Amino acid sequence: MHFASDNSGPVPQQILDALARANTGYAMGYGAEAEMAEVTARIRTLFEAPDAAVYLVATGTAANVLALSALAQPWQTIFCTRPAHILQDECNGPEFFTGGAKLTPVTEAGKMTPEALRAAIDGEETRGVHGPQRGPVSLSQVTELGTVYSAGELGALCGVARDHRLPVHMDGARFANALVSLGCTPAEMTWKAGVDAVSFGGTKNGCLGVEAVIFFDPAHAQAFEYRRKRGAHLFSKHRYLSAQMLAYLTDDLWLENARAANAKCALLADGLRAAGADFAHQPQANMIFAALPRATHRKLFAAGAVYHLWEGGMAGPEDEPVTARFVCDWSLPEQEISAFLALL
Amino acid sequence: MHFASDNSGPVPQQILDALARANTGYAMGYGAEAEMAEVTARIRTLFEAPDAAVYLVATGTAANVLALSALAQPWQTIFCTRPAHILQDECNGPEFFTGGAKLTPVTEAGKMTPEALRAAIDGEETRGVHGPQRGPVSLSQVTELGTVYSAGELGALCGVARDHRLPVHMDGARFANALVSLGCTPAEMTWKAGVDAVSFGGTKNGCLGVEAVIFFDPAHAQAFEYRRKRGAHLFSKHRYLSAQMLAYLTDDLWLENARAANAKCALLADGLRAAGADFAHQPQANMIFAALPRATHRKLFAAGAVYHLWEGGMAGPEDEPVTARFVCDWSLPEQEISAFLALL
Amino acid sequence: MHFASDNSGPVPQQILDALARANTGYAMGYGAEAEMAEVTARIRTLFEAPDAAVYLVATGTAANVLALSALAQPWQTIFCTRPAHILQDECNGPEFFTGGAKLTPVTEAGKMTPEALRAAIDGEETRGVHGPQRGPVSLSQVTELGTVYSAGELGALCGVARDHRLPVHMDGARFANALVSLGCTPAEMTWKAGVDAVSFGGTKNGCLGVEAVIFFDPAHAQAFEYRRKRGAHLFSKHRYLSAQMLAYLTDDLWLENARAANAKCALLADGLRAAGADFAHQPQANMIFAALPRATHRKLFAAGAVYHLWEGGMAGPEDEPVTARFVCDWSLPEQEISAFLALL
Amino acid sequence: MHFASDNSGPVPQQILDALARANTGYAMGYGAEAEMAEVTARIRTLFEAPDAAVYLVATGTAANVLALSALAQPWQTIFCTRPAHILQDECNGPEFFTGGAKLTPVTEAGKMTPEALRAAIDGEETRGVHGPQRGPVSLSQVTELGTVYSAGELGALCGVARDHRLPVHMDGARFANALVSLGCTPAEMTWKAGVDAVSFGGTKNGCLGVEAVIFFDPAHAQAFEYRRKRGAHLFSKHRYLSAQMLAYLTDDLWLENARAANAKCALLADGLRAAGADFAHQPQANMIFAALPRATHRKLFAAGAVYHLWEGGMAGPEDEPVTARFVCDWSLPEQEISAFLALL
Repeated sequence: MHFASDNSGPVPQQILDALARANTGYAMGYGAEAEMAEVTARIRTLFEAPDAAVYLVATGTAANVLALSALAQPWQTIFCTRPAHILQDECNGPEFFTGGAKLTPVTEAGKMTPEALRAAIDGEETRGVHGPQRGPVSLSQVTELGTVYSAGELGALCGVARDHRLPVHMDGARFANALVSLGCTPAEMTWKAGVDAVSFGGTKNGCLGVEAVIFFDPAHAQAFEYRRKRGAHLFSKHRYLSAQMLAYLTDDLWLENARAANAKCALLADGLRAAGADFAHQPQANMIFAALPRATHRKLFAAGAVYHLWEGGMAGPEDEPVTARFVCDWSLPEQEISAFLALL
Repeated sequence: MHFASDNSGPVPQQILDALARANTGYAMGYGAEAEMAEVTARIRTLFEAPDAAVYLVATGTAANVLALSALAQPWQTIFCTRPAHILQDECNGPEFFTGGAKLTPVTEAGKMTPEALRAAIDGEETRGVHGPQRGPVSLSQVTELGTVYSAGELGALCGVARDHRLPVHMDGARFANALVSLGCTPAEMTWKAGVDAVSFGGTKNGCLGVEAVIFFDPAHAQAFEYRRKRGAHLFSKHRYLSAQMLAYLTDDLWLENARAANAKCALLADGLRAAGADFAHQPQANMIFAALPRATHRKLFAAGAVYHLWEGGMAGPEDEPVTARFVCDWSLPEQEISAFLALL
Repeated sequence: MHFASDNSGPVPQQILDALARANTGYAMGYGAEAEMAEVTARIRTLFEAPDAAVYLVATGTAANVLALSALAQPWQTIFCTRPAHILQDECNGPEFFTGGAKLTPVTEAGKMTPEALRAAIDGEETRGVHGPQRGPVSLSQVTELGTVYSAGELGALCGVARDHRLPVHMDGARFANALVSLGCTPAEMTWKAGVDAVSFGGTKNGCLGVEAVIFFDPAHAQAFEYRRKRGAHLFSKHRYLSAQMLAYLTDDLWLENARAANAKCALLADGLRAAGADFAHQPQANMIFAALPRATHRKLFAAGAVYHLWEGGMAGPEDEPVTARFVCDWSLPEQEISAFLALL
Repeated sequence: MHFASDNSGPVPQQILDALARANTGYAMGYGAEAEMAEVTARIRTLFEAPDAAVYLVATGTAANVLALSALAQPWQTIFCTRPAHILQDECNGPEFFTGGAKLTPVTEAGKMTPEALRAAIDGEETRGVHGPQRGPVSLSQVTELGTVYSAGELGALCGVARDHRLPVHMDGARFANALVSLGCTPAEMTWKAGVDAVSFGGTKNGCLGVEAVIFFDPAHAQAFEYRRKRGAHLFSKHRYLSAQMLAYLTDDLWLENARAANAKCALLADGLRAAGADFAHQPQANMIFAALPRATHRKLFAAGAVYHLWEGGMAGPEDEPVTARFVCDWSLPEQEISAFLALL
């Protein structure tokens, strides 16, 4: 009954097999191995982006901060949501890698709207050289609150950014979960909507630790290589990164994992709803936030269910429900969901 | 009729005279000149702080960012108000000098309350190592909205900081204006209340460009010297900084200037009030924010009055008043105030 | 015949098996998994350092720059050798992570001497606050030129550092190769000699990508956790790092691998010497630099041997030998060495 | 008998008068004052560069580090000489403002040669993405050892830079002293030779504290404004900077001061030479390095002469001469030189 995070489960056998396959003989390192050329080719094909620059790193935070450092100047501010991972969960990594850029929360919600984004952009650069300047927009897809931007919503947000000549970054730590939820193509969810750079997650969806950074404009490529190296994120035995990513993209493993995770989350959500739980947001991917009576929560915890209480939930009054975050990963056994729901 | 800022007026003759007096013969530089020893002695006496470390820089932003970089770690967040100069008007200078720290706005108001500060502090460090850690509290005195913390209010805020073992910085760009408004001693307004480091402004109150940074704990001294030098803020012909500060502290020039500025602001406020203007805050120092009918504002601008419209005021509907910021400096001729009030 | 680097070979089966073993069920991440507690315990025991703080990262550069950022202030300079990895091969990563510290090369040689270190230290801080201040000493063990400091040499160098109250870092990317070469204990090669922090390499000696950072003074622990996270080097699925390190330390795998690599290098060196090659340094670990006639070099390359020509070797006159770097890893088949030597 | 530095003397009356003239009434700040427009126009005319971007800061280090931060990427290395101010005397300021760039000393001498520069450039970027990349070339004119590059020498060095597409910065802390020594035009000494950005010094040649940063390509302008502000180097009462610079450029004061300083240095050099002193370099501007018998040095110090002993001079054997640095500023009374020479 483990719903704490999609980074706490195991990886599929295909990923381990790929490591074993890659583990033969001598190979060039640092991305010059044969597997990486194949990764690049696959991602370019998948994204219908034959010129895209593609790089691998091992953590989602690395993907985000390195991508943002390519798009933001130190005197700018990055527009994101309040719950954004880059604002809440990267310990000032974006500030560090950009050389001191700010982050401006556009909204308290999981998703920003074009109106809110426009208002936030208008609210900056009101003091000439004295204040921070407008910088990139960063969109999380799936958002940190489990919601998913439609392709149309992405297009509208990117349009606001484009009106101000601001680049757009997508934190796609759960890219695959969003994609299968929308049923659109990677291109539609990114550059066709106006996204310039993507953190394409593998870790939360079945890899040991690998994320791709994709720039649709290859002009970012060379500087990125220096940024990655000086950030200490260039792997010598890079084949073990590219082998993971290659297996992830083979036989639709990435899509299968995401579909499995989303389906399990839907199952969980149905059960919770049937048991009377309210949802802050309708489940769209593999993460939901449900309001539970405090007594129910205590019972679940006592029975060994593992999940996070969202902000401020623990110490409230008895008659106030708690908000719990449930995340399903690809590997979650359905019987665990059944067992959990049986507790309700 | 110039009320735009207290950095747009001239300096008193005493300051120029001091430069001329300092301009004789050869002298050690970089703060080793005789005048600086005298500055340090005077400030220690004024603040009843015989061990204080005292440094001069030429801009208020330099004082703030260097002081904060001594108090904040790159992975922390600095607690301030939304209108704070360090947040709005230093172009990410605090982020740059601290190596990437964040700023957390405690309140939208000019002054923070102990409750709001405590809530803001409690709101950080909720995610372990993932989020920014709690860092220093920075208080502006006079605040950017023209209000003044009482010694008691400062003590309460510093108490909250101390409860969390967080250091306190005071942005005293208008230190003198606050001091004469409160009628307390420099010590009462700083270390006796719990303040650890002060940006002690001279520029806005009659100097060409000089600010002192004061640390009550001299343990900060040595690193500050390196920070100042690598920040390119160490003057070779430092005597022209110390001469200014010495003249500023001589014969109570600093207090006289502040009293004059505050008195003129009170005169202006009385006239505005008599003419029906509302104040966002009761005038306490040398800066007020008054709501004016839009037609009145147009008449004043047309007649040559110079002041800033505060955020969002310019383009609103006709029946909505504008909020105008008026700042008085020491040199403002009373007849200009009279002339201005006569326009109302 | 692959002698290019000890990061281009495969990993032993035990490492892959450990990944598979770790790949079961749900686990806490970010270093809170059970395997990491075991790693910490093992390293403390190995180093006879019950209080040591132990962290894992995935690249050697990350270990170095994060360790150095804990020891160096931005206004200091780090003493190392000219060929040091931190100076030559980290793309200004140390400057980035320390916030702008310099690196001062103590010597052009692979090993620094106490005299040279003392002279280099004396050469800094000659200009008061204007120049960089003295900072940590960083020693590579095995050095980048394949040599090994004896425990006595390390003690003497650390003594010079201690005389100036400077901390000492060891870049132990090839820690195991040095250790088995010296036949001493990990404690003798580190804290007993006066070393404060160690980058304890796993990647070059048989892991996919894992390095430990060890601080003998646990006072560095907390800040390190923030540094690692904001540097984007904290793994969510951390168990796959700790599992590697655990397998590496189990049944003396790390020592066996290092002994194998060193032995193969000795074999290679013997053959080269027999064939008339000169060595810049006597082989001590798993890396040698041999002078080869240019014609020999061409023959070897043509036959498919893979190794690096050291600086400036390629374009010289025909009668000038080239200097070639040969690195042996644990996995190198002895028949490849024989085949290579047969070419000579 | 004060020969310690050209930043320890007084400023000419014209500079103080200009401050007094500027000290009337209210004025826009931050460079928007009328005086600054005039400064920009004058410098553009002087340099025959109608599009040049011109900015003022208050310290020479600020001019250097801000100019370099516009030209260098964090992963690059800046080519300079070993005695360069940016390497020796800015406490890692260039590293700080560039976000972590390195500095590569091209030569131990005061002046670099095209051959040495080419060799230094060739020596970098030998390790692909692993090492620092080639960055700007910084030339000091007058050099820190008192020598002056001819226009032809500058052209040859800039040609080497251009061959590698590297920008060129000139540290002109003593720009005027070099100019009058060469008898060429500002344009010939800068952009006509291939220089991209200049730190145009005022402080060492008679100002209280003001330096211009000049970019011949105005594409650098906008970012520079943000860099200056976030570096805390934008003055609110900017008129007191522009007034200084304006007076400096009026009636050839800057050239007169430099001619006076150079002439006095020539007088001093003649006297020293007559007394048997050797010069490390032939005097070309206002700074010389003379070898003195140790006994002579003791006598001079005892008589109150003030100058710096250059590196390592103080503690040597009795029969080894010391090397003393003598700097003459515009204000040095000739009778002090006579008095000094009389001591010899």
